[in-house]
Amino acid sequence: MPLSKNDIKYIKSLRQKKFRQKYNNFVVEGDKIVRELLEQRPDWIEALYGLDKWIHELPPSPITATAISQRELQQASLLKTPNQAIAVVRQPKANWHGLDLERQLSLYLENLQDPGNMGTILRIADWFGIETVLCSPNCVDVYNPKVLQASMGAFLRVHIATVSIKEVKKAYPALPLLATTMDGANVFEFDAPKAALVAVGNEGAGLSEDLLALADRRIAVPPNRNSGTESLNAAVATGIVCAVLRQAGL
Amino acid sequence: MPLSKNDIKYIKSLRQKKFRQKYNNFVVEGDKIVRELLEQRPDWIEALYGLDKWIHELPPSPITATAISQRELQQASLLKTPNQAIAVVRQPKANWHGLDLERQLSLYLENLQDPGNMGTILRIADWFGIETVLCSPNCVDVYNPKVLQASMGAFLRVHIATVSIKEVKKAYPALPLLATTMDGANVFEFDAPKAALVAVGNEGAGLSEDLLALADRRIAVPPNRNSGTESLNAAVATGIVCAVLRQAGL
Repeated sequence: MPLSKNDIKYIKSLRQKKFRQKYNNFVVEGDKIVRELLEQRPDWIEALYGLDKWIHELPPSPITATAISQRELQQASLLKTPNQAIAVVRQPKANWHGLDLERQLSLYLENLQDPGNMGTILRIADWFGIETVLCSPNCVDVYNPKVLQASMGAFLRVHIATVSIKEVKKAYPALPLLATTMDGANVFEFDAPKAALVAVGNEGAGLSEDLLALADRRIAVPPNRNSGTESLNAAVATGIVCAVLRQAGL
Repeated sequence: MPLSKNDIKYIKSLRQKKFRQKYNNFVVEGDKIVRELLEQRPDWIEALYGLDKWIHELPPSPITATAISQRELQQASLLKTPNQAIAVVRQPKANWHGLDLERQLSLYLENLQDPGNMGTILRIADWFGIETVLCSPNCVDVYNPKVLQASMGAFLRVHIATVSIKEVKKAYPALPLLATTMDGANVFEFDAPKAALVAVGNEGAGLSEDLLALADRRIAVPPNRNSGTESLNAAVATGIVCAVLRQAGL
């Protein structure tokens, strides 16, 4: 059964946030990541399409893939160079209640706008075994194709939820909130707590006053005394903070 | 004197690497970065154009700016949203001989392809006071507009040169070459030397066998034992390594 015009229209619509929110679905594309999806989150898959040859090389799976032509793949794809397979995926339930946050390191992203930064931070979380990344409601959409691409599959493994920092603080009152700022304590000299929610702010504006007012501590990656630049990239700063806190036993 | 059609054509040509190489020039755009350029590297400026209002607000400078209209700015700009000023800039001489590399921390980028990563690494170098970044001849062009944008002005302050690793090793035989790899020693537990050239490899392939054969040591940012991802982003890994080596006194 070929892809209908309506199927193609539907898949393409999911490149826009409003349609992802309307249908609660998103698109995952390309051989490598679709294989990871099939292996790690088969239950998220709503529809799976691939070239005939690609489907025949798949390992056995309860998910049935629909064979499509190169032309159909090209029509449905959001990529310049479509790569063999495309899946329509249900957005996982983004629970933020009842998590074990008071015993681990987690991240809170506030008003992060760059899809590359968001995806790179998910990849950092995955690398350092950080289970949960919470996002403020005004962050770039996690299921934006550029976020998914930069995350290198981390969105399959890291638990992601959208929630305001006030609600988090109410639900997890004993969880220390560490604000990454320019004027915080040197993260290398910081006596790491046993659990923490590390907050990372917007690329230009940093963390909001509202969040800073709720923070228990401020931490920073200090510049060299010869430094000429004003700040580190948000994802790079997050990577350094996570590496150092993990090394400190958190 | 308005911008001629030829001026506009020339400026626009500089978005392509072949014309940047042919003329040895590049383009810098936008209020903030052009002001930094005027303040920090006025001698690099070949031509400076700005809106009338923008020019009148400039501090005194030996450089004469040419007033252009919004329409001319729009025509010459490489940006979707041009921002008041545009400069044609001479590429600085990229010397790699006679530097004091054997007494400091420097970076060597091998076959780095993503302009965002390249720019972000220049920004990291600037933040940590790293004076010199050497690039292999097959790296993305440093004067690519996307590199310049991601560098947040670091290209004005960091000394950048293109050279093969073999030539570097020949010229600086006592400089330890530290290869960042997946299987290296944990950078946090690494006994940092007094000087080092830290090599960072291609986003997908990592460092070449040729470079690894020349390396004195291998270092790594180890993943958490629950990690699901294969690697860190190149710029994030570079940021962590630089932060840790600086903290260790290098």
